[in-house]
Amino acid sequence: MAGNIFGQMFRITTWGESHGRAVGVVVDGLPAGLPFSESEIQKELDRRRPGQSDVSTARNEADRVEILSGIFEGISTGTPISMLVWNSDAQSSSYDAIKNTPRPGHADFTYMARYGIRDHRGGGRSSARETAGRVAGGALAKLLLSRFGIRIAGHVLELGGIRANPLSFEEILENVEKTPVRCADLAAAEKMLEKVTALRQEGDSIGGIVEIIVKGVPAGLGEPVFDRLDADLAKALMSIPAVKGFEIGAGFEAARMRGSEMNDPFRIEDGEITCTGNNAGGVLGGISTGLDIVCRAAVKPTPSISKLQQTVDLTTRENAEISIKGRHDPTIPPRMVPVAEAMVALVLADHMLRSGFINPGTLLE
Amino acid sequence: MAGNIFGQMFRITTWGESHGRAVGVVVDGLPAGLPFSESEIQKELDRRRPGQSDVSTARNEADRVEILSGIFEGISTGTPISMLVWNSDAQSSSYDAIKNTPRPGHADFTYMARYGIRDHRGGGRSSARETAGRVAGGALAKLLLSRFGIRIAGHVLELGGIRANPLSFEEILENVEKTPVRCADLAAAEKMLEKVTALRQEGDSIGGIVEIIVKGVPAGLGEPVFDRLDADLAKALMSIPAVKGFEIGAGFEAARMRGSEMNDPFRIEDGEITCTGNNAGGVLGGISTGLDIVCRAAVKPTPSISKLQQTVDLTTRENAEISIKGRHDPTIPPRMVPVAEAMVALVLADHMLRSGFINPGTLLE
Amino acid sequence: MAGNIFGQMFRITTWGESHGRAVGVVVDGLPAGLPFSESEIQKELDRRRPGQSDVSTARNEADRVEILSGIFEGISTGTPISMLVWNSDAQSSSYDAIKNTPRPGHADFTYMARYGIRDHRGGGRSSARETAGRVAGGALAKLLLSRFGIRIAGHVLELGGIRANPLSFEEILENVEKTPVRCADLAAAEKMLEKVTALRQEGDSIGGIVEIIVKGVPAGLGEPVFDRLDADLAKALMSIPAVKGFEIGAGFEAARMRGSEMNDPFRIEDGEITCTGNNAGGVLGGISTGLDIVCRAAVKPTPSISKLQQTVDLTTRENAEISIKGRHDPTIPPRMVPVAEAMVALVLADHMLRSGFINPGTLLE
Amino acid sequence: MAGNIFGQMFRITTWGESHGRAVGVVVDGLPAGLPFSESEIQKELDRRRPGQSDVSTARNEADRVEILSGIFEGISTGTPISMLVWNSDAQSSSYDAIKNTPRPGHADFTYMARYGIRDHRGGGRSSARETAGRVAGGALAKLLLSRFGIRIAGHVLELGGIRANPLSFEEILENVEKTPVRCADLAAAEKMLEKVTALRQEGDSIGGIVEIIVKGVPAGLGEPVFDRLDADLAKALMSIPAVKGFEIGAGFEAARMRGSEMNDPFRIEDGEITCTGNNAGGVLGGISTGLDIVCRAAVKPTPSISKLQQTVDLTTRENAEISIKGRHDPTIPPRMVPVAEAMVALVLADHMLRSGFINPGTLLE
Repeated sequence: MAGNIFGQMFRITTWGESHGRAVGVVVDGLPAGLPFSESEIQKELDRRRPGQSDVSTARNEADRVEILSGIFEGISTGTPISMLVWNSDAQSSSYDAIKNTPRPGHADFTYMARYGIRDHRGGGRSSARETAGRVAGGALAKLLLSRFGIRIAGHVLELGGIRANPLSFEEILENVEKTPVRCADLAAAEKMLEKVTALRQEGDSIGGIVEIIVKGVPAGLGEPVFDRLDADLAKALMSIPAVKGFEIGAGFEAARMRGSEMNDPFRIEDGEITCTGNNAGGVLGGISTGLDIVCRAAVKPTPSISKLQQTVDLTTRENAEISIKGRHDPTIPPRMVPVAEAMVALVLADHMLRSGFINPGTLLE
Repeated sequence: MAGNIFGQMFRITTWGESHGRAVGVVVDGLPAGLPFSESEIQKELDRRRPGQSDVSTARNEADRVEILSGIFEGISTGTPISMLVWNSDAQSSSYDAIKNTPRPGHADFTYMARYGIRDHRGGGRSSARETAGRVAGGALAKLLLSRFGIRIAGHVLELGGIRANPLSFEEILENVEKTPVRCADLAAAEKMLEKVTALRQEGDSIGGIVEIIVKGVPAGLGEPVFDRLDADLAKALMSIPAVKGFEIGAGFEAARMRGSEMNDPFRIEDGEITCTGNNAGGVLGGISTGLDIVCRAAVKPTPSISKLQQTVDLTTRENAEISIKGRHDPTIPPRMVPVAEAMVALVLADHMLRSGFINPGTLLE
Repeated sequence: MAGNIFGQMFRITTWGESHGRAVGVVVDGLPAGLPFSESEIQKELDRRRPGQSDVSTARNEADRVEILSGIFEGISTGTPISMLVWNSDAQSSSYDAIKNTPRPGHADFTYMARYGIRDHRGGGRSSARETAGRVAGGALAKLLLSRFGIRIAGHVLELGGIRANPLSFEEILENVEKTPVRCADLAAAEKMLEKVTALRQEGDSIGGIVEIIVKGVPAGLGEPVFDRLDADLAKALMSIPAVKGFEIGAGFEAARMRGSEMNDPFRIEDGEITCTGNNAGGVLGGISTGLDIVCRAAVKPTPSISKLQQTVDLTTRENAEISIKGRHDPTIPPRMVPVAEAMVALVLADHMLRSGFINPGTLLE
Repeated sequence: MAGNIFGQMFRITTWGESHGRAVGVVVDGLPAGLPFSESEIQKELDRRRPGQSDVSTARNEADRVEILSGIFEGISTGTPISMLVWNSDAQSSSYDAIKNTPRPGHADFTYMARYGIRDHRGGGRSSARETAGRVAGGALAKLLLSRFGIRIAGHVLELGGIRANPLSFEEILENVEKTPVRCADLAAAEKMLEKVTALRQEGDSIGGIVEIIVKGVPAGLGEPVFDRLDADLAKALMSIPAVKGFEIGAGFEAARMRGSEMNDPFRIEDGEITCTGNNAGGVLGGISTGLDIVCRAAVKPTPSISKLQQTVDLTTRENAEISIKGRHDPTIPPRMVPVAEAMVALVLADHMLRSGFINPGTLLE
């Protein structure tokens, strides 16, 4: 109820603050019988890790995941998997300046309104560092899904108004990690990088759009009427810090289309029923169609900018100004890609279990 | 788990099919002590009712709500409120044609993939008629919220590419019911009406955007990190049939903005902390800021069109064609307005209880 | 959260008051593909119905169940099943006397403490009439379980201190409906009947013990560590009005046993692993062993007695006296048997789905 | 859904195995503003710790709790509190003997039936060591409750058939920690100790009854109809390993009582409504009456005994024998007392939040 638990049958609980002792996750509902190891979790965490390039912060986080439970001789036992990452690089003092002056666009003010107290160091619980737990949990979800032929590819579709050309699923997978902006259209990526670099020099930031594509989802996944697959995906992506919009398939474009354009015709291909278009984005009536799931998240610009901004002083209740120091990502989408993939994986693993495509008992024969 | 229950503390369960005996809702979690009557529920249901104009179907539904429990001498008792609406106008035979040929853009195919059986008459459970239960439950949520100064206004912001000019909350409330398209900018409404009428004659349909604005929400509402107010609003609106996208505040525009544009500055006004802009749409870090909540749903065009469409025959597994008969709304947004308001009200009532702004015990002194 | 919803994957919501318009239930989670009809629900409701003999009240309830949704051509569709029973025999005026004088042993006082208002007629929501919804929902659970070879037998094991001799599962099934006290040991039943009749004449009442035995539960059902099968059974039976205790297997006797007596030895029989005793009552570590589940509920005497009792006046806040008029069951266990069976069936259906023994998708091939 | 999460608004997730790296808990829902420190958690863990006397195992567990999140400058922030205890004393090799021969009365067999794999070392997840997480979470619940005047006292009421004489709440609190059997009637404690010592020498074990009494619970706590306070208490205590029965107030005795004996009369005392007896055990109709909550758990004898027992070999599927080596508590109730207190505290904290007696927002002014 307090909101730190996500999912029904594949369920994660994340915990931890930016400058507390550690951040972590407990995964409840991974079926017994899945082989995994720290390296598979670490791989995903490394993608989320900051300090990888000029478009992400230089905080030096080792971020080594430790698995504390739920695994025996390299195989999941069906009991909860507890994982954590210690916080090593916590220079709290640099945050004293923001203790009483809420940063515009940040959760500083609303956390005070909600709780009357907050760990202000690095944003505390509202820091994107919390997403490390999601990525660790999502790594297990991905691994589980891969056993059932489901693959997920995330990429930056648009950054600072520069939009990537359409690419195939395999092209995205191949190219996305080749550039720090995680845009698989490498020409567009170049331009994005230039734009981001220029903005960083101005002390400003920029937003973008992350797209997630999922291949191999069987038809018949989703729980009408409220726990529709697309509604749960929307909640999942909207729960990531800085996301201000969600769409699936034609999305907002659908608002301007005619029925005769929008409706994906059904056809028989190789004896199977399929659609000759995918404006639906892989979901009709809240249930998967068997086509690719294609959804997007609109990401606002990084709120932490060095430009002078107006704010207030919470103690004196007078107007004030703030210039946020330290190195901050000038744009969020590149680092959000693995987080968004994780959230989509969590929703799909949950619904694969809920709809009976994966047996919650055990994967062992 | 099967997905027909929505909310945590203010919780509704809807049930019923388009051509079954009735549709209804059970509301669990309305605090004791709220006076209400059937007329307040009926008022909202009447707004959702079809057959009100050329832009909505002519099905003659009396749709009289009956309250079966949870009320004593006109006041809620804290026990579940069961409400139903009988299905009176059910001409099932007219749906025989679609039994084996799934309508493009509809849930016919996916329901068969999910359940292996479906009540095909009028779309069965996937029919928009299911939303009557949501509107009835939402009417109670609205009533509860109004006791705490929270008011909700929904309107059609865009239809067929025609966009309304910005209007104030009060202007929207005043004008929205004056036109069948529920667009408060009456000049734009005129053009929308023309476009919709033309499309109907072509046997086609069109999409649009519904916007919901909420006034009076206190700062501090929402449960990080997963049950953020905006994430729950996204799920709520995405769970409405035909919605393909959701955004809050600047929404998808935020993806093209700079941090220095997007961030809403904090200022002291009349001794209170507020923001001088509302790109956030009333939510920062998943928690309400105290400013208006402003969110939008992208609605696809009505999938039921009389134009000939390609489909398949589920029994013969051969390609087929379909032309959907009967009168159908050529556009969904106008009738969706009260449904979207209801879903937003349900989320807010739930979070007002979850965050402790409304005591779940009793409203009585 | 408000407590009227039970179960996770097989989930019921009950609603309704004793003297409201109706009582009912919505079942969410019954897989598609189960054939059923009103007669199978009615059969269980008839067993719960009062007025069947001297040991139950004479209120004339027709209690005809109506199924309003979730079924198409006699088969479940996977959508919610809404069922109701109209309240026909509601003589509210006879309850005016108890409006302000809470009946000892009843929920009158605590409902006022909790809600500040209550429908006092016939106990309102706290009336045993609410259990009609449970029995209707449980009838579907039983039907589902029977498809998987699981059978449930309930009986009165003890009444007024008279204990039945041990009987086999089949003997219980055969005899239990032969006597109004629902004790399968017919000699003991005779004595129970005498005792109850004598107490009724004194204006008093008596308690007893209901036992439920389940055959055919596979080994491996239950979710450690909190949602153990026995913990969920305990909650299920303790949620029935008038139950004050629960035990499984050796139960309270286990508190006086040695480990060497209590532990059920494992043995190979016909190549299968089994136990040569069942002190565990079919559950070890919260998971079913494959042996019969045997559990019991201690039922207090009917609180409604005609003997003069001490109470208070809620309005004047002075001491008062009360003698409860009308015909009331002098003992609850006989009528509780079908309710307890229903609750056990609901728990088992839920866990069969949760543990993957029943596929939540569809029962159809 | 996988069963490792308990509670609705005050919610804990426990994780960890007996011989894994650590055991722990995440508490979600503790309101902001509660001062606490590791010492208050440690105090409760120390009570649960083994090796304190002849009646508990000699395993040397330091069991130092570490708080990893959710606290800032000594005060809860409203975010999840993650706590863990490292497993230091893990001699896994001593458990090789039981890998393939399930111990009678243990969960070894059922875990294999459920998951197809298990961490057999020390019982893995089914070990009582898991309850360390409950005790740590319960310590926070207790602390929260104490702010609202609610106090909890647990004690061993009966052990090996020896029953303590009735004592007052204050006497129990004063005496219970004076003897290793945690029986506040010190004369009875002496006899229990003798009995347990004798049984240990025989290589056998014995059961008993733990009683929990709660003072200061306001009237009006509990959520009919399913989430009754007593139903949730039953689930809570039945979820503790080795518990086979639960009762509240008169409990199983109620089954033999008359209504005129059982019903607690209402009276006015000092202007307040109260009862002149407490056969109800503080709960009527699932809602607290304001009197003491009195409930009991029947605990079976320790299943680990050195006496030779019959079992089977899971690999050869042949009959086998087992004698369980190592030091094991010859009786469970004394060490269960703090665990049972924790579970009761968790239920009460949850319901205090659910019913609105504690505001979930913040405890700060």
